[in-house]
Amino acid sequence: MRVLVMLDGTPGGTLADPDATHVRVDDLGVTRGDGVFESVLVVDGAPRELDAHLDRLARSAAMLELPVPDRSAWAAAVRTVLAAWPLAGEMAVKLVCTRGPEYGDGGPTAFALGFEVPAKSRRNRTAGVTAVTLERGFDPAIVERAPWLLLGAKTLSYAVNMAANRYAESVGADEVIFIAADNTVLEGPTSTVVLVTDRTLRTPPPTSGVLLGTTQAALFRAAERAGWTTKVEPVDRAELTAADGLFVVSSIRKISRIRALDGVALPDATDLCTELNALYESEY
Amino acid sequence: MRVLVMLDGTPGGTLADPDATHVRVDDLGVTRGDGVFESVLVVDGAPRELDAHLDRLARSAAMLELPVPDRSAWAAAVRTVLAAWPLAGEMAVKLVCTRGPEYGDGGPTAFALGFEVPAKSRRNRTAGVTAVTLERGFDPAIVERAPWLLLGAKTLSYAVNMAANRYAESVGADEVIFIAADNTVLEGPTSTVVLVTDRTLRTPPPTSGVLLGTTQAALFRAAERAGWTTKVEPVDRAELTAADGLFVVSSIRKISRIRALDGVALPDATDLCTELNALYESEY
Repeated sequence: MRVLVMLDGTPGGTLADPDATHVRVDDLGVTRGDGVFESVLVVDGAPRELDAHLDRLARSAAMLELPVPDRSAWAAAVRTVLAAWPLAGEMAVKLVCTRGPEYGDGGPTAFALGFEVPAKSRRNRTAGVTAVTLERGFDPAIVERAPWLLLGAKTLSYAVNMAANRYAESVGADEVIFIAADNTVLEGPTSTVVLVTDRTLRTPPPTSGVLLGTTQAALFRAAERAGWTTKVEPVDRAELTAADGLFVVSSIRKISRIRALDGVALPDATDLCTELNALYESEY
Repeated sequence: MRVLVMLDGTPGGTLADPDATHVRVDDLGVTRGDGVFESVLVVDGAPRELDAHLDRLARSAAMLELPVPDRSAWAAAVRTVLAAWPLAGEMAVKLVCTRGPEYGDGGPTAFALGFEVPAKSRRNRTAGVTAVTLERGFDPAIVERAPWLLLGAKTLSYAVNMAANRYAESVGADEVIFIAADNTVLEGPTSTVVLVTDRTLRTPPPTSGVLLGTTQAALFRAAERAGWTTKVEPVDRAELTAADGLFVVSSIRKISRIRALDGVALPDATDLCTELNALYESEY
C-alpha cells in the first residue's frame, strides 16, 4: 500500500498514482542526487515529530541552497496522504524535494509518499540487531570549515549509505555505525546512535558531522523529564562496547538495541531497550 | 534540443519524449542517488571514447553491485540517439542507470539522453577558467580499505559535487579542485586535473580516490605518441601553482586551462593548452 501526493502548488497537493512515473529523466534529483528528504512515522493517523522533521528539511535545504515548498505546504500534503490512507496502526510518509528538471522552466520536484513500515524494521525493534563499525573517512574538524561537504544535511545522495548497508549485509550484520577519522562515533547510514552508561543517555553532536535525530531528540526529552541525564557530546569508538546499552534510533525503527558489534556480543540491553521505548512512547 | 532513449529491453531502446516523465518517485535513483552515469562527447555523429566510458560504467556498477544493461545495449541506445539527432557538430550523450523502483518488480531504470554541449563549456575551452581548491575530507589511504565509500565510482550521488560548484561560484570561481586530507590533489567535481611541468603530463592516480578520466587517458595516449612523458602519480597541492600549466579535463569541456587558482594568477598556459587540445584532437 502506498499513497502519493505531488506538491504541485494546489492546496494540499494532488493525489497521484504511485505506480506511474512523475519524474523526468533530467530531474537533478535523478542525475545528481540533488535534493533533500525526511521520513516521518505516523501512528493511527498522527504524524510524530512533524515540526522537527520540517525544521530539519528546511535546514538541509538551506545547506543545499535549494528552494523548497514552505512548511504549511508539506503539512497539508501529509494531511492529504493521511486522509487517503485506509489502514490503522503505523505507517510512514517520506517527504522528498529535488532541484527539479535541469532543462525545465524552474521549480523543484516535491512529493509526499505514504508507505507501510517494513516488516524488518518492526521485527528489529524487539529482536535487536547486529552492527559493524565502518570508517566514514572525514575528521569532524572539517565540518565547520567545509560546508560544501553537506555534513549534517539529509540529502538524496545516499549511494555511500546504501553501499555501507550492503557491506554490512555481506558480513552478516544488520546495521552500520560510521566512525570518523579521529575515531569518534558518527551515526548509522539511516539512524542515530545512542548509548547508555549509568543511566546517562549519550549521542554524538552535529559538530561531529551527523544529522540531528528527530527520534533521538524526542527520546532525550522524555528521558530528561523522567530524571535521566542526557549528553550530546563526542563519543569515542572504544566507549561503544563499554556501554550498558547501545542503540540505533530512527523514525521508522524507533529504538533498536544492538546485540553484537563487530562480531562481539554486547551486554544484554533488552530491559533497557524496553524502558527507552516506553520513555519515547510517553511523548505521544 | 534533447533526444531521449529508454533502455527498456527492446533492441536499440525506445525513443521517448524528454519533456515527459519516465521515472517513478520511488526509484532508488531519486530517493537514494543510487545509480551510475557517464557523459560521452559526440562529434559529427562519432562518439568519443565510448569503449572507455562503457568500461568505467561497468566498473562503477560493479562497485555499487548494480545490475546494468550490457555494453551492447548501451552502444545500441547511443546509436538510436544519434540517428535521431538532427544537428551536425558537437553534442553529448548522458548514460544513466539507477537501481530502479524500490517497490517495483525489479530491474534498473536506464536511459541515454542526448543534449547540446553547454555554451559555457565551449567558451571555457578557449577563455580558460578560474578555480579554487576545496577540501574533500578523506585521506587517500582509506580508498583501498573502505570500498563502501565508493571512491572512484561515478555515482548519481553528486550533491557534494554540486555544492562545491555552487561554493566556487559564490567566491567568483568557475571550477573546483578537490584536495585530500593528506594535501594531495584529487579531481574536480566533474573533471580530471592535469598539470604540465617540463613537458611532462601528470594526473593523480585512482589510488588517490579519483575517477579514471576518459579524456585524460586519450590525451595521455596522444601525448606519449608525440614523445611527451606522462605520469599517473600523486600530486601535492603545492605543485599546482609551480606547474607550467594546470588544466581541467572532461569529455564535455575537453581541456581547459586554469588561469587563476585561489585568486592567484597562474603562468599563461594559452599556447600549452592549444598544443594539448591539438594532441587530444589528433586521436580522432
